[in-house]
Amino acid sequence: MSLHSTPKIITIKDIAQKFKCSPSTVSRALNNHPLINIETRNTIQEYARRMGYQKNSVSLSLLNKSTKIIGVILPNISHFHEAAMVNGLQSVLQPLGYLVNICITNESQILEKEYVDRLLSNRVDAIFMSVSQETYDSKDHSHLEQVLKRNIPLVFIDREYDHFSAFGVTINDYQGAYRATQHLIEVGCKRIAHLRGPKGLTVAEQRYKGYIDCLNDHHLPVDKALITETNFNIESGLKPTQYLLNLKDRPDGIFGVNDQVCFGALKVIKEYKLNVPTDIALVGFDNSPIAEYFQPPLTSVKRQSKQIGTEAARLFIESLTSGSSSVSPQNCVLDSELIVRDSSRRS
Amino acid sequence: MSLHSTPKIITIKDIAQKFKCSPSTVSRALNNHPLINIETRNTIQEYARRMGYQKNSVSLSLLNKSTKIIGVILPNISHFHEAAMVNGLQSVLQPLGYLVNICITNESQILEKEYVDRLLSNRVDAIFMSVSQETYDSKDHSHLEQVLKRNIPLVFIDREYDHFSAFGVTINDYQGAYRATQHLIEVGCKRIAHLRGPKGLTVAEQRYKGYIDCLNDHHLPVDKALITETNFNIESGLKPTQYLLNLKDRPDGIFGVNDQVCFGALKVIKEYKLNVPTDIALVGFDNSPIAEYFQPPLTSVKRQSKQIGTEAARLFIESLTSGSSSVSPQNCVLDSELIVRDSSRRS
Repeated sequence: MSLHSTPKIITIKDIAQKFKCSPSTVSRALNNHPLINIETRNTIQEYARRMGYQKNSVSLSLLNKSTKIIGVILPNISHFHEAAMVNGLQSVLQPLGYLVNICITNESQILEKEYVDRLLSNRVDAIFMSVSQETYDSKDHSHLEQVLKRNIPLVFIDREYDHFSAFGVTINDYQGAYRATQHLIEVGCKRIAHLRGPKGLTVAEQRYKGYIDCLNDHHLPVDKALITETNFNIESGLKPTQYLLNLKDRPDGIFGVNDQVCFGALKVIKEYKLNVPTDIALVGFDNSPIAEYFQPPLTSVKRQSKQIGTEAARLFIESLTSGSSSVSPQNCVLDSELIVRDSSRRS
Repeated sequence: MSLHSTPKIITIKDIAQKFKCSPSTVSRALNNHPLINIETRNTIQEYARRMGYQKNSVSLSLLNKSTKIIGVILPNISHFHEAAMVNGLQSVLQPLGYLVNICITNESQILEKEYVDRLLSNRVDAIFMSVSQETYDSKDHSHLEQVLKRNIPLVFIDREYDHFSAFGVTINDYQGAYRATQHLIEVGCKRIAHLRGPKGLTVAEQRYKGYIDCLNDHHLPVDKALITETNFNIESGLKPTQYLLNLKDRPDGIFGVNDQVCFGALKVIKEYKLNVPTDIALVGFDNSPIAEYFQPPLTSVKRQSKQIGTEAARLFIESLTSGSSSVSPQNCVLDSELIVRDSSRRS
């Protein structure tokens, strides 16, 4: 057996020749048409299966409008959050007969464009998309315009995209960050640092804004020295935390843009022989399954990750059932919830 | 704007009418044919872009043999390991112009069959697959036979599939588990428990076998009471660990089928006020990025997750360049490596 050799694709014509009948008889037999008697149907189907006959749904999809394929474009699948979103999408769409194709851009706009192009060529029924960092940076969204021109439903998931009018389902990152910061104030923190996410990314900006506004509303000074950047990964929390702990006037609370950077921070804080939460209280974002297994268990803002997927799928299905009557684009914002654990419990 | 309305797809014919020329002129202009002068080409291309014209690569793919699309079928994308494998595949295939479509089966054979069917219909160039639990259980692999009959390269990744002769890239799970158990013996453990994975899944069986053989080789008795089942998830490590710690003669070492169940075990061991590693030494499998951030940091068997992807991609590319000459199916087994940390360091 070889991994790859000259393909011999068996066609309806080949089967027709074999059985000395017309191609349309074969086609009917393969599609269980009642006009063809059951025995003939079985014989032809069995032969087709044995010979590796493959219905050509590519050409069929040119005739039918719906391919029942959904494209999902994500920047990465490294964390629990993305897997949960996909799970939410599939839980609604699979029972309706849709198959879900996932494409990973690694934050590259070139790849994002290629995937959009390919999904459109394959005539997917909808595209669910979490926009790449490079698309945010470039402000070029010609590829997204192509999707709308083709009247393919486009739903932004997880990351809002302001420059563009389309449907979206996101988390209320601003409110979550505000609540996390407020909680740190409530447990007595006076100098609250922020391990922020990459500049320009809406998720990171919204959480940053929630943090800043909360400090202002509570008349706490915003000290730029206490704000330092990470890239969401666990390692990227190490150096910024070292920097914070080396400050002459070090923070007594840290709000991290996600749980990962907090896990990194926790390691550094322990190395400095400081106590969490008495010396430094710590709050993350995501409520990843592992957060409660850390020592101390990490307080975190819970994102409704799976619900992003189910809501986005629901928006799409609703638009189908409401027919071609125009539905205004809307951004559905899901609430986030603070889960308090020992990393910030001071009582 | 509406999320979904009657699609108006502009065709080459429409463009030809607009410019009062033949469809073939338009086609040539869109494909940068030198026979068409550059100004006309630019005008037609600009108009096509503005009107949302989309090349129909679906019908093109019927003419060309290669679609430059690769299908990847995975049971889940919940952990770092799967993301790393996909990353490995993409790192080799994307520079060569391949796009990667990921499909998630959630261990369901029905979904696995549908995805295989759809990928074949879309005439993908290859399928990389990690077989679902249900396919293992049912021993029905008719859908995999369809792939080979169509001469589409099929490469098993991560999970071996013995019932079937095809290419594969897996980790040496047996050797990794053997080494993990041996390490526990070397640090002085006499009663080594195993939090095993689901029965019937090769990965779990191989690790179980490595554990058993190592005990036998070192003349330690195999005590069935010390072997208990998990499903790879963090929560599934909780109850089995409670059971082990409640035994009259409790274990002094635990080898977990992956890091996740060990994180669960660690929580329980702490609740029982026992010390890791002095009371119970703990070794996991995966070396997930988070393992070294736990307290104590977890000893773990490192899987070459990304390399599974790069090796599998390399096998596929090699089979293409070696043409149609038959290459025997081979299973490439990557070595695993024990990373010792404080959870098992007794000195």
